[in-house]
Amino acid sequence: MQKKAIDAPINGDFTNKNILSIGQFSKKDIDILFNEAAATEKYVKKYDGTDLLKRKRLVNIFFEPSTRTSSSFHFAMEAHGGSVKTIENVAFSSVAKGETLQDTVRALEQYAHVTVIRHSEMGAVSVAAEVAQNPIINGGDGVGEHPTQALLDLFTIKQRLGHLDGITVTMVGDLKNGRTVHSLAQLLSHYGATLNYVSPKELTMPKSYTDPFKHKGIAQLEHQTLSGVLPKTDVLYVTRVQGERFLDPQEYERLKLTYTITPKVLKDAKKDMIIMHPLPRVGEIDTAVDSDPRAAYFEQMRYGMYVRMSLLALVLGRSIQK
Amino acid sequence: MQKKAIDAPINGDFTNKNILSIGQFSKKDIDILFNEAAATEKYVKKYDGTDLLKRKRLVNIFFEPSTRTSSSFHFAMEAHGGSVKTIENVAFSSVAKGETLQDTVRALEQYAHVTVIRHSEMGAVSVAAEVAQNPIINGGDGVGEHPTQALLDLFTIKQRLGHLDGITVTMVGDLKNGRTVHSLAQLLSHYGATLNYVSPKELTMPKSYTDPFKHKGIAQLEHQTLSGVLPKTDVLYVTRVQGERFLDPQEYERLKLTYTITPKVLKDAKKDMIIMHPLPRVGEIDTAVDSDPRAAYFEQMRYGMYVRMSLLALVLGRSIQK
Amino acid sequence: MQKKAIDAPINGDFTNKNILSIGQFSKKDIDILFNEAAATEKYVKKYDGTDLLKRKRLVNIFFEPSTRTSSSFHFAMEAHGGSVKTIENVAFSSVAKGETLQDTVRALEQYAHVTVIRHSEMGAVSVAAEVAQNPIINGGDGVGEHPTQALLDLFTIKQRLGHLDGITVTMVGDLKNGRTVHSLAQLLSHYGATLNYVSPKELTMPKSYTDPFKHKGIAQLEHQTLSGVLPKTDVLYVTRVQGERFLDPQEYERLKLTYTITPKVLKDAKKDMIIMHPLPRVGEIDTAVDSDPRAAYFEQMRYGMYVRMSLLALVLGRSIQK
Repeated sequence: MQKKAIDAPINGDFTNKNILSIGQFSKKDIDILFNEAAATEKYVKKYDGTDLLKRKRLVNIFFEPSTRTSSSFHFAMEAHGGSVKTIENVAFSSVAKGETLQDTVRALEQYAHVTVIRHSEMGAVSVAAEVAQNPIINGGDGVGEHPTQALLDLFTIKQRLGHLDGITVTMVGDLKNGRTVHSLAQLLSHYGATLNYVSPKELTMPKSYTDPFKHKGIAQLEHQTLSGVLPKTDVLYVTRVQGERFLDPQEYERLKLTYTITPKVLKDAKKDMIIMHPLPRVGEIDTAVDSDPRAAYFEQMRYGMYVRMSLLALVLGRSIQK
Repeated sequence: MQKKAIDAPINGDFTNKNILSIGQFSKKDIDILFNEAAATEKYVKKYDGTDLLKRKRLVNIFFEPSTRTSSSFHFAMEAHGGSVKTIENVAFSSVAKGETLQDTVRALEQYAHVTVIRHSEMGAVSVAAEVAQNPIINGGDGVGEHPTQALLDLFTIKQRLGHLDGITVTMVGDLKNGRTVHSLAQLLSHYGATLNYVSPKELTMPKSYTDPFKHKGIAQLEHQTLSGVLPKTDVLYVTRVQGERFLDPQEYERLKLTYTITPKVLKDAKKDMIIMHPLPRVGEIDTAVDSDPRAAYFEQMRYGMYVRMSLLALVLGRSIQK
Repeated sequence: MQKKAIDAPINGDFTNKNILSIGQFSKKDIDILFNEAAATEKYVKKYDGTDLLKRKRLVNIFFEPSTRTSSSFHFAMEAHGGSVKTIENVAFSSVAKGETLQDTVRALEQYAHVTVIRHSEMGAVSVAAEVAQNPIINGGDGVGEHPTQALLDLFTIKQRLGHLDGITVTMVGDLKNGRTVHSLAQLLSHYGATLNYVSPKELTMPKSYTDPFKHKGIAQLEHQTLSGVLPKTDVLYVTRVQGERFLDPQEYERLKLTYTITPKVLKDAKKDMIIMHPLPRVGEIDTAVDSDPRAAYFEQMRYGMYVRMSLLALVLGRSIQK
C-alpha cells in the first residue's frame, strides 16, 4: 500500500488528493475549482443535476453533528448522480467498543470511493488521512480547518460581484475565534484585497493571521465600530459574537448592538455590495434584511453545494466541463 | 423575493403550492390528486418506480421523530427517481446554537426543490412556509394538521371500496383527541357520508368538528358501543384509546375491551367492508384480524406512499399521466 | 395472505427466501452465492456499480446500532442501483408508543421490496419474518446469528486463497462467546478444513459447536498459545478477547499479550496465508501489520459488500450473471 501525500499542494491536479486545508490551494488551483463550480452551477440551474458521479459512492462521516455541512455534501454527491451514506452516530457504535478513528475510516472507506470527515478535534481528519486509501475531504475539524466553507465563501463573492480582484471586505464580530474569517482572509490575500476588521478589542483578528498578509500587498484596517466603513465595503461578512467570550455582560450587550445589521445600518452601504454570514445567525442580522437583494447569506449555502460538487468530482478525476 | 400565498386553495393547480392543511383541497383538487395517485399505483406495481422526479431533491426535516412518515416521504421521493436527505436530529445541531426554525428551513432548502417538515408544535410548519422559497409539505405539526395522513386514509377507502359516495364510516376510539379522525371526517363531508362516532362519552367527537357538517347533508350518529353499528359499516376506522386520558382506570379497561376488534366482533360486519387504523396500534385490533382480507391497515401505508409520490410530483409541476 | 416458510433451506433457489441463518445454506447454495458475488466483484471493480436493482427498495431496520453492517447493506443496495432507507432510531418512535416488532416491520415493508433487520435479541428477526411479506435478511440478532458476516468471512477466504478445500484455519481469541467463529466453523465444515482453536481455557470453543463436526471429517485441535500453529496456518482468524469475561485481570493481561498479532509473530507464518478479523479490533492486531500484504481484515469489508449485493439480488430474483 503506497501512502498518499497527506496534505500535498493541489498544484493543478485534484485527482486522488486529500482536501484538508486551504493552504494546499494556489491561486491557479482556486481558478480550476471555481471554473468547475461555475460550470456546475449553470448545469444544475438548467438540468437540476448531473450524472457525472453515477455509481460513485461517498461515505460522509460526521463524528460531530453538523446538519448543514452533512446535508450539503450529501446533496452535492446526489446532485452529481452519486450515492451517499451519511453516518452521524459513529460514537454509538464501533467507536464505543474502543475502535480508533483510523480503523473506523479505513473500514468504512472500503464501500466507497471518497470520504468526507467532520470531527470536533483539530488534526483528527489529517490523522485519518494518513491511513486512508480513498481521498479524504475535511468537513471541519474543530478549531482547525473547514476548507470547503472558506472556498464557498470566496466562490459566493466571485459569483455575486463578478470578480475577486481589489475588493474591500469588511469582517464583523468575533474575529479572534472565528475560523471562517481567518480562512477567508487567507484566501483573499491572493487577490490584493482591502480588509476591514470590525470587532471589540477583546476579539480582534490574531496577529498570527494578519502578519503574513503584510508582505502580500493587503491593506488591513482595524475598527471598533462599523460607522464610516460601510460606504466603501463590497462584502460585509458578519459572524456571531458569543456572549460567553466576554467577561463583562454589559460590554457584550453594548457591542452586540453596534454590530447588528439592520435596514437602517445598510442605508450607508453600496447598492451593489453583498452581505454574508456563515450561519447560524443569532440576531446579528435583522430578519428585515433578508428581503434586501444584497443579502447573500442563504444563497451562500447553494454556492456551497456547487463548490462541494466540484471538489467531489475533481478528486475523483471527473469534470462537468469535459 | 415574492412571497407565496402560504395556505392558498389548491384550486386545480398544485404547482409550487404549499400543502399545509386539508382545508386547501376542494373536491376537484382531491380528484386530481387521486387520479395521479391511482396512475402512480398502477405504474409502481408494474415497474417498481418511475423517473419522474429524477434530479429533483427533497429535504425531509423532522423536528420530531416519526419513522413511519419520514420513511414514507423518503421512499416516495426515491420511488419517483428523486433524491432525499432526511434530517432527524436537527435539534442536536444549528437549532441548539439558537437558530430559528425559519433560518433552518431557509438554509436547508437551498440544496433542494421541495421541503417536508414535521414539527411537534401546531403552526410551526406554517411559520416556516412564510419565509420558504420552495414548496413546503406539512408532515404533521403536533395537534395541528397532518394533511397527507388524511388524504391517504381517504385514498385507501377509494381504492378499496371503488368509490367514496354515500358510504358509512364508523370511527372508534378516542375521537376527542384523534387528529386523524377529525381530518378524515372533514374530507368525507365532501361525499355525503354517514358517520358513526363510537367512543366513551369522555372522548366524543368535538362539536367544533361535527357542527359544520350539519349543513352538508352528512348523517352523524354517536354511539358508546359497536353493537348494532357494524352490519351497516363500509369502513371501520379504529384509533388508539390512551389510558392516560381517563380519570378512572377501571372505566378505561372496561371500555377498551368493548372496542377491541377481534374475528368474533367482525362476524357481524359486511363481507366487503374494510378495517383501517392509522398505526401504531397497541391492542385495539387483535393480530388474528391481520389475515382477514378486510384488514386494510398495513396496505394503508402503501397507499400513503402513492399519495405522497403524487403530491411531490404535482407541487413540482410534474405528473405521471403526461 | 400465504405465509412463507420462515427458515427454509435455500435449496438452489434464493428468490423470496428469508436469509435468517447459515443452516439454510447447502454447499451448493454457497456455490451459487459465491459465483454471483465473484461476478459482482468483477463488475463493480470495472464499472463501480450496476443497475440490477434499479427501482427496488430496501428498508434497513436497525433496532440496535451497527454502523458498519448498516452501511454495508446501504451501499450494497445503492451499488446495485437500488434505493435504501436506513432506520437507526426505531426505538425513539413507534416502538416507544408500544408498537410490536412485528407491526413495525409489516408497516415499513409496505414501502419496499426487501427488509434487513438487526436486533439485539436472539430470535427477534425470525419473529418478524413470521409475519413479513417481503424477504427478510438477518443483519445480526444478538447472540443468535449474523449469517452475512459468516458468508463474507468465507467469501474472503475463497477470493484470497483461490479455493476453500482442505485449508487450515486458526481461530484466536474468545472462542466461547464469538458468534463469528462459531458460524465460520460451521460453514468451513462443508470443506474438510483443519481447525485450530487457540484460546484461554475459560474461552474455548463450546462442545455444542465442535461435536457435530466430528462426523464430517474435520480435524479440530485446541491450543492455549499460537506457538507452533502459525507455520501450517492458511487463515488466521483473530477475534477480540474482552477483559470483562475474565475473573482474574492479571490472567487477562497475560493471555491478551500472547494473542497479539505483531510483525514479529508473523515471521513464523506462511507467505501466502491471510489474517482476518471481524472488526472492530482493540489491540489484538498491531497496526504495524496493516501494511503486510497478508492482512485481509479491511478488505473483508469490501467482500462483505459484494456478498450482500448478491444476496439482495438473489432474493429479489435477479442476477448479474444473466
